Amino acid sequence: MLKNDQLDAWDRENFFHPSTHLAEFARGNLPQRIITGGSGCHIEDRDGNRLLDAFAGLYCVNVGYGRPEIAEAIAAQAKELAYYHAYVGHGTEASITLAKMILDRAPDNMSKVYYGLSGSDANETNIKLVWYYNNILGRPEKKKIISRWRGYHGSGLMTGSLTGLGLFHRKFDLPLSQVVHTEAPYYFRRDNLDQTEEQFVAHCVAELEALIAREGADTIAAFIGEPALGTGGLVPPPEGYWTAIQAVLDRHDILLIADEVVTGFGRLGSMFGSDHCGIRPDIITIAKGLTSAYAPLSGSILSDKVWKILEQGTDENGAIGHGWTYSAHPIGAAAGVANLKLLDDLKLVQNAADTGAYFKQALMDAVGDHPNVGEVRGEGLLCAVEFVEDRTDRVYFDPAQTVGAKINAALLNRKIISRAMPEGDILGFAPPFCLSREEADEIAGKLKEAVAEVLG
Amino acid sequence: MLKNDQLDAWDRENFFHPSTHLAEFARGNLPQRIITGGSGCHIEDRDGNRLLDAFAGLYCVNVGYGRPEIAEAIAAQAKELAYYHAYVGHGTEASITLAKMILDRAPDNMSKVYYGLSGSDANETNIKLVWYYNNILGRPEKKKIISRWRGYHGSGLMTGSLTGLGLFHRKFDLPLSQVVHTEAPYYFRRDNLDQTEEQFVAHCVAELEALIAREGADTIAAFIGEPALGTGGLVPPPEGYWTAIQAVLDRHDILLIADEVVTGFGRLGSMFGSDHCGIRPDIITIAKGLTSAYAPLSGSILSDKVWKILEQGTDENGAIGHGWTYSAHPIGAAAGVANLKLLDDLKLVQNAADTGAYFKQALMDAVGDHPNVGEVRGEGLLCAVEFVEDRTDRVYFDPAQTVGAKINAALLNRKIISRAMPEGDILGFAPPFCLSREEADEIAGKLKEAVAEVLG
Repeated sequence: MLKNDQLDAWDRENFFHPSTHLAEFARGNLPQRIITGGSGCHIEDRDGNRLLDAFAGLYCVNVGYGRPEIAEAIAAQAKELAYYHAYVGHGTEASITLAKMILDRAPDNMSKVYYGLSGSDANETNIKLVWYYNNILGRPEKKKIISRWRGYHGSGLMTGSLTGLGLFHRKFDLPLSQVVHTEAPYYFRRDNLDQTEEQFVAHCVAELEALIAREGADTIAAFIGEPALGTGGLVPPPEGYWTAIQAVLDRHDILLIADEVVTGFGRLGSMFGSDHCGIRPDIITIAKGLTSAYAPLSGSILSDKVWKILEQGTDENGAIGHGWTYSAHPIGAAAGVANLKLLDDLKLVQNAADTGAYFKQALMDAVGDHPNVGEVRGEGLLCAVEFVEDRTDRVYFDPAQTVGAKINAALLNRKIISRAMPEGDILGFAPPFCLSREEADEIAGKLKEAVAEVLG
Repeated sequence: MLKNDQLDAWDRENFFHPSTHLAEFARGNLPQRIITGGSGCHIEDRDGNRLLDAFAGLYCVNVGYGRPEIAEAIAAQAKELAYYHAYVGHGTEASITLAKMILDRAPDNMSKVYYGLSGSDANETNIKLVWYYNNILGRPEKKKIISRWRGYHGSGLMTGSLTGLGLFHRKFDLPLSQVVHTEAPYYFRRDNLDQTEEQFVAHCVAELEALIAREGADTIAAFIGEPALGTGGLVPPPEGYWTAIQAVLDRHDILLIADEVVTGFGRLGSMFGSDHCGIRPDIITIAKGLTSAYAPLSGSILSDKVWKILEQGTDENGAIGHGWTYSAHPIGAAAGVANLKLLDDLKLVQNAADTGAYFKQALMDAVGDHPNVGEVRGEGLLCAVEFVEDRTDRVYFDPAQTVGAKINAALLNRKIISRAMPEGDILGFAPPFCLSREEADEIAGKLKEAVAEVLG
């Protein structure tokens, strides 16, 4: 127990928690949980619970909790120089070193890193830069952004618009008019059950082509997508999807923004999802895995092609009117340097690939045959189990039954944290990369119990 | 010197610095400066320069550099628990404690804190919540936001739109259509030189009233403003301005967002600029001073009035679809707790008031009589000197002469950091609150030399 017994009341009286039922929390009808520590794949709360966090926070604590190497790097930086800004050519050893480390790991033809704090603000930067890019190129009409239904790209006004999930649109007047959405690359949820994966990819391509034709290619600046869908359902792309999409975008001179907030730095078992999936992006969004969440830091990695036009832009217009006070914050940069070193030293990306494959098989073995399991899927340490009322005819449960949330709660009772994804009865797993095979087995075994408890 | 002699090259090859002439920096024609440490009001770079930072980073290092109390709080938090998310009722001792400390210091009738990372993302949150608020109240048309020319509210798409400075609009297709701008409360730059301050306030009110009449009050959701203009020129409000503006907003049921990113936690010599200026805000934006920039953290403080409607919204619609992964980040929260304690323990807000008054007088004594000084102004430790070609007829310099930038550079040669504000020949000063009278005199004395060097 912490020393302060007023925390419970202070929490309910003062704290606006994100993604929460505000009224129920304030009234005391939703549980609160005060986290006090963590180690490896486990966290502890002040009531003495020790939980296996199979979602790594919000799929971000990739190297696991309690890493002294990163804590010490943060402590040293805080003592030496907690802050100075990065405007007009200022920097620190950490921020410069990290920029070099990011570019060394990034896909080919990448040129520069702009630092932000969150995935949302990095995507905000990306859209600003894409608009600037087309203004410099003298194409003022080429500004719309294509995103996919079920994509997740943030929670701001523009970035929540890019996000293709109703929860982030309803009551917020989103999406903004500059964003248009196309088909989600989600084979399991295809409309036409008779389609092969190859036919479904052709369908996604045709939908994209039709959208571009409808809007006019000269009005479309960029396409944004996660290499594998994240919050929309944790869905690896269908075979051949990205190659086919990229060809369409190239033909219409539409930039490709790869949102690697979830996949960047190892989640799929490769350093970058773009390389893993055969994507050649013009801009890459990074955040979570960059620091394993030990300190807030995000980034926009820009290709040579985009950077050259930004240079032209400043030659024509002077210094660029874009900046966050905390861009390249030294604490975040120091955490990033230590985190990327640890990822290498412990070969954690390889572990994400190896243990990920083992984990997916363990999930399949545990619940794959259950009549309400529609699909067990995954790539690296990004896995999901999707539940349906009828697997033969792929009939979904009535959302009012909240089946996903109930299984999630039953797992939590067994001290395993998973995530009930917002649309559909989809249970997500994205544990730290240090997950052991024993822990993988434990999650799968408890999942089997939880499913049996809720669904029989 | 740092151990790594490749930093210079890595910096130019990989690092996209904010607010920088990108091409000139990449070509090596703009200086780079690698900061290595700091103490009190001074920073040091790796070339051995020790500089008096009279702008506190980007007016954010309010308690000064090198505070072991904050560095140790960050180190302890990083070791204990660097990260867990705050979604769905999760928290940490630091984030809950800080929420209580913020509300204890905030103006009356404030109810809850939502945490972000930057002032930009906090204002993004505010606009999202204001739209949600009016949707819950059944006023779907009441959505436009009034901002002021020369206001600064961020650098994103929406927040850069709120910002009323051309640099942040040009080539970015901003402002977005949901934002409309009204007169800047900038008496020195009034159009009609014959106006008294009282007449000028009446003029600002009439302009606001006319804008509301033109747009229709039922289309306008909120008005956003800094208690004292920041990046637009460091301008304290004219006497009576806020009382008069507030009356108009109340009459039209328009929410008032006080952007206290610069003024919050002491900059004007009071804990909050709203209390200092007689503002009763519905929402308050906080960032910089909350942690003195030792770690990224921002916040939106919501009034009872707004919070009640958000509660109603979640009762009607379920959990709110808004959240940043790093909301309430433990490192930022720990820095905030230590920072606010330090502010109290060292009576730094009082020092901002006392030394601020002394500093302003020192600036007046040093350059107030110079024929090219149009105005020396300030409130607390937010001061500016504005240069003009002719002070009698208030004739501005041709911007192409870059007089402000030249004086800024001449001061930097004397190892004093000030800031040439983006529109007008305005030199800004916003030093750490621990500024001593000796340091205030030093800045004023060096400014006199710099002005003489550039302007004679």
